[in-house]
Amino acid sequence: MPFFIYMKNKNFQPIQEIGFSSLIDKISEYDGKENKDIINGIGDDASVLSIDATRALCTTTEIFLEGVHFDLTYHPLHHLGYKIVTAAVSDIYAMNCVPDQILTSIAIPNKYSVQMIEQLYQGVDAACKDYNCQLTGGDTTASHQILAVSVTATGIAQKDKIIYRNTAAIDDAICVTGDLGGALAGLRILMREKEHWKNSDNQQFQPDLQEYEYVVKRQLLPSARLDFVKDISQSEIVPTAMLDLTQGLLADCKQLAVKSGNGAELFTPAVPISLDTRKVADEMKEDVDKYAFYGGEDFEMLFTLNKDHVEKFAEVFDDFVVIGRMTQDKNKFIINTGEGESIEIDL
Amino acid sequence: MPFFIYMKNKNFQPIQEIGFSSLIDKISEYDGKENKDIINGIGDDASVLSIDATRALCTTTEIFLEGVHFDLTYHPLHHLGYKIVTAAVSDIYAMNCVPDQILTSIAIPNKYSVQMIEQLYQGVDAACKDYNCQLTGGDTTASHQILAVSVTATGIAQKDKIIYRNTAAIDDAICVTGDLGGALAGLRILMREKEHWKNSDNQQFQPDLQEYEYVVKRQLLPSARLDFVKDISQSEIVPTAMLDLTQGLLADCKQLAVKSGNGAELFTPAVPISLDTRKVADEMKEDVDKYAFYGGEDFEMLFTLNKDHVEKFAEVFDDFVVIGRMTQDKNKFIINTGEGESIEIDL
Repeated sequence: MPFFIYMKNKNFQPIQEIGFSSLIDKISEYDGKENKDIINGIGDDASVLSIDATRALCTTTEIFLEGVHFDLTYHPLHHLGYKIVTAAVSDIYAMNCVPDQILTSIAIPNKYSVQMIEQLYQGVDAACKDYNCQLTGGDTTASHQILAVSVTATGIAQKDKIIYRNTAAIDDAICVTGDLGGALAGLRILMREKEHWKNSDNQQFQPDLQEYEYVVKRQLLPSARLDFVKDISQSEIVPTAMLDLTQGLLADCKQLAVKSGNGAELFTPAVPISLDTRKVADEMKEDVDKYAFYGGEDFEMLFTLNKDHVEKFAEVFDDFVVIGRMTQDKNKFIINTGEGESIEIDL
Repeated sequence: MPFFIYMKNKNFQPIQEIGFSSLIDKISEYDGKENKDIINGIGDDASVLSIDATRALCTTTEIFLEGVHFDLTYHPLHHLGYKIVTAAVSDIYAMNCVPDQILTSIAIPNKYSVQMIEQLYQGVDAACKDYNCQLTGGDTTASHQILAVSVTATGIAQKDKIIYRNTAAIDDAICVTGDLGGALAGLRILMREKEHWKNSDNQQFQPDLQEYEYVVKRQLLPSARLDFVKDISQSEIVPTAMLDLTQGLLADCKQLAVKSGNGAELFTPAVPISLDTRKVADEMKEDVDKYAFYGGEDFEMLFTLNKDHVEKFAEVFDDFVVIGRMTQDKNKFIINTGEGESIEIDL
């Protein structure tokens, strides 16, 4: 058995050359033994496994690394604990299912104390309570340099209530809950203040983040839309397709269109952006639309409705707006800026 | 909201001061909202969630970091992919359940090519096929420096067939499948050869590992004991308690004793160790018992049987030996060396 010296690989194709989306397509080919009970495998917010004639299990998992997905210079550990649970339950909500249990795997470097790990789990605990689920297990291990956490969530739903991302029909209205771009605006502020702190002579320097409270909270302590899923359960009208907004509006809309086999058109002026987010973009001299388009982690819901049912749906749940429509031109994603301009992106 | 400067924490209690086992006990206090359907939460190989009157869902998750849990200098990526699936399914087998699905989360640094990630997933695919399960999803994201992978497995079992680790009775025989210490022996050889390679002028240096094939395979490409779980399903006699051997025999036996509320006595001479493993220990001038006692990742099963049922069980499955017994002295773990010596460890 030869040593495997990976840096000498001759045909090195960087992942950025094909992108994560194509990489996932490739990975999907290595999916082991087909199981007749798997209703939905790789490619949605969660997997769906039939457990009896009427019910199915939804399962999701996510991973978070220090220095990549979070920065502990400004991310309090209990907020981080809350956020990782939010990310996992949001995936289950995006299937129109509610989670029962959370499992976490954690790899901990020496620089973390017992108390710090307890703080992280206080956040996990608080989130599990808010989202009505129990922490039931996981893996606890050592790490050399960085903290790494993965989180798994499972929930059980009626099969006919599960909402997938690949079922949006032509002419359906594309909708989003809440407002977008806030998480990225918060990140921009935190990164700016971190720079100030690093360059400050005064090591006790503490930025005043009060005026940015909304966006900072969107970044550090986001909420998953349990209220939306609860309201759907009371509604005659339900979304025709759904996913949660974690990659950014454009990437997630592309997913919706490609998976559903249709095209999509977005009306930029309709995209909901809070005044707080706009203020940050102004301060940073940046285009606020880009925060909404490319910023991820807002944990809002992106969903479609039959266009004739939008008003009726709004009687049950009203924290959403229509931002576009599904089209029949399945190779095109059109961004209509509302100023007579429109940008076409090939899907 | 103040910046959180974690390195300045005043009451820094290192985790090694209390150990991972105590840390897990602390984490268990932060387990969110109690769910009446959770039959078994934190503390066994997998969580157990009731899904109907007779069946339950078993779920497990594990995390693996480059440089901590694997070294890609000598770990071929397809073997690594196989091993991470083995680790997860082994946890499900340890509940006497078989997994239906696997989910993986992966964080990938720039230094990995598309082909390398495909190799990893070829291993995942092969393992899923061998263990009869389907890869159904996960998370794919970027990383800065190290490859990190987490894996989740779920399976559904009849509630009355699930075997826990906390149900070993006094006088039960403690048994293990296969042989122990091989994975650590393999690791010792690979680390030695890596040193040779690093110190070699010839960058093409390839160690000859043929004579160590058995132990190297135990480290790089271990198997989970599906055969054992299959045979149990055919047997009238079943284990009274069970877990998989991943932390090392002593740590895992302690778990069995503490969780079951009993003491345990091990007979060192009975611990099964292969000739290949002994040969490595001899070469390294090390005590081979320590390989079995402290080496983990053998993925063998540690289980207990009513002492009067051992022979009958062996008619169905015979790749195991009795290495000790459960005792009533619940504060004591006795290591009987068979040479008139015995070591007592407080539990």
